[in-house]
Amino acid sequence: MITVQYFFEVTGTGFFAISGALAASEKARPDWFGATFIGFITAIGGGSLRDMLLGSFPLAWVKDVTLLYAIFAGVVVANVLYIPLLRLRKSFLLFDTLGIAMFAILGAEKALGVGAHPIVAAIMGMFSAVMGGVIRDTLTNEIPIIFRKEIYATACFAGAAIFVINAGLGVERTLNFFVSGFLIVVIRLIAHRMNLSLPKFREDGPPPIA
Amino acid sequence: MITVQYFFEVTGTGFFAISGALAASEKARPDWFGATFIGFITAIGGGSLRDMLLGSFPLAWVKDVTLLYAIFAGVVVANVLYIPLLRLRKSFLLFDTLGIAMFAILGAEKALGVGAHPIVAAIMGMFSAVMGGVIRDTLTNEIPIIFRKEIYATACFAGAAIFVINAGLGVERTLNFFVSGFLIVVIRLIAHRMNLSLPKFREDGPPPIA
Amino acid sequence: MITVQYFFEVTGTGFFAISGALAASEKARPDWFGATFIGFITAIGGGSLRDMLLGSFPLAWVKDVTLLYAIFAGVVVANVLYIPLLRLRKSFLLFDTLGIAMFAILGAEKALGVGAHPIVAAIMGMFSAVMGGVIRDTLTNEIPIIFRKEIYATACFAGAAIFVINAGLGVERTLNFFVSGFLIVVIRLIAHRMNLSLPKFREDGPPPIA
Repeated sequence: MITVQYFFEVTGTGFFAISGALAASEKARPDWFGATFIGFITAIGGGSLRDMLLGSFPLAWVKDVTLLYAIFAGVVVANVLYIPLLRLRKSFLLFDTLGIAMFAILGAEKALGVGAHPIVAAIMGMFSAVMGGVIRDTLTNEIPIIFRKEIYATACFAGAAIFVINAGLGVERTLNFFVSGFLIVVIRLIAHRMNLSLPKFREDGPPPIA
Repeated sequence: MITVQYFFEVTGTGFFAISGALAASEKARPDWFGATFIGFITAIGGGSLRDMLLGSFPLAWVKDVTLLYAIFAGVVVANVLYIPLLRLRKSFLLFDTLGIAMFAILGAEKALGVGAHPIVAAIMGMFSAVMGGVIRDTLTNEIPIIFRKEIYATACFAGAAIFVINAGLGVERTLNFFVSGFLIVVIRLIAHRMNLSLPKFREDGPPPIA
Repeated sequence: MITVQYFFEVTGTGFFAISGALAASEKARPDWFGATFIGFITAIGGGSLRDMLLGSFPLAWVKDVTLLYAIFAGVVVANVLYIPLLRLRKSFLLFDTLGIAMFAILGAEKALGVGAHPIVAAIMGMFSAVMGGVIRDTLTNEIPIIFRKEIYATACFAGAAIFVINAGLGVERTLNFFVSGFLIVVIRLIAHRMNLSLPKFREDGPPPIA
């Protein structure tokens, strides 16, 4: 299982870098350094923030440069397969969602492993999955995706919460991984397909006196 | 005192979440997830940054989920009492200022407690009070409030500095809390009422040759 | 060497604060607090992020307030010599580049010192030099300089990488400092003078179907 999980971590990191380089390229026409920087931030931002909040050092990419190689490879793939990747956006949504699901659950598990409360672990799982993109959007001066898009971070939070609950109930780890991850993928893909969104915090705008 | 202080910490965290959810709702029309996320960041951002800078782990909300419950409650209150809260903006300024004052002083005390130099402790107190709002503004693509508004972070810095100085002089803790906190509240409310601001760094703009 | 290095660290921190206060003043007309805050963030942001990523506590400015005095002094100098400094922008580019070069190399060395992999150390060197400016630009709602400007972060990465390689090869430390630092200065100044830039990640924009 360790080996399979590690394979997924490295692959997921590479996919995040592809996603970051594509996102950067679509709006800012960066140079190679900028695209790599954004791919890097997107890939390691969420997990790094989680570990810094947990005080869990060293960070994954600081102790394992294989993750950095995966990022560099992802940025090159994003360049070489740029047109096909943009054309295959729908397939890419699937890959992206698989990556997010995996990061959310691995992140929640890591937080549990250092003794975090279940609610905190679910938050950390969601952070692992989405905060890389949030930091990327903030640096490129975009309103972060989680405030704009369809159900996305919410799916990660829900899946991470289910994972944490199942873990507390003693559900076998591999089974729990697949059930919780499947939940994230299903929620996000259905929400995207059916254009579902959460209810607005307030249906009215601010009152005129504001 | 511990119990009273803890009561204030939890209440203050909830007020920060109300303030964050209101601020988010006024400009971005977020969904429930977005409003909660922004309320959360506003409430825990300053203290988390302080503790990450100090290397003081675990963070308060990671080890005590009561703070998270206070945040969730604050977001619900912001929704249910949305119109009255916006109408009572002037009263809310008072609550907001009380919260900021408390966070600034508790933050400075925490920094002193882990051995920080007095100047560093005053900075950490100010950070505890204002950086949650700064991170919130940055994520929602606003120029952070501390660069726009009347005397605000400056009041927090002044109060935290007085607290640190008094602590060094051996002033009794409870007294010091009230004196320093009162100073922050008075400075901010007077500055707001009288529309006071600090002098500009430069009265001229950049020279034409720039 | 320690004393010389410390002198450079303090001086470099002051220069970063000057640079930050000037940059803030050019666009946002801040008050004294805002200019000092931005000078502070610019000066300590990169090194603080590096140390937080490495889990290396306490941070430099938390344990040594001399760095804070250098920042305050830098902000005052930026105000008093505002017009001459803006006029002497070309000379200032040289000072700025010297500061960046020093931070990049000291940052890489620090990362090596806590056992980081050479690639990680080169990234940390680059972060030390540029992330203060990135955080400053993000807070003031600018697209960070590293995505806009000529070869800049790339020069820092290149110099830090050469330093790390040389250190691995056993090159004497002082010599290594000057060789690697000189490389950063030369790359940046030549790139600026000749208006060189890295190749774009993609020469085409996004395809119309995107």
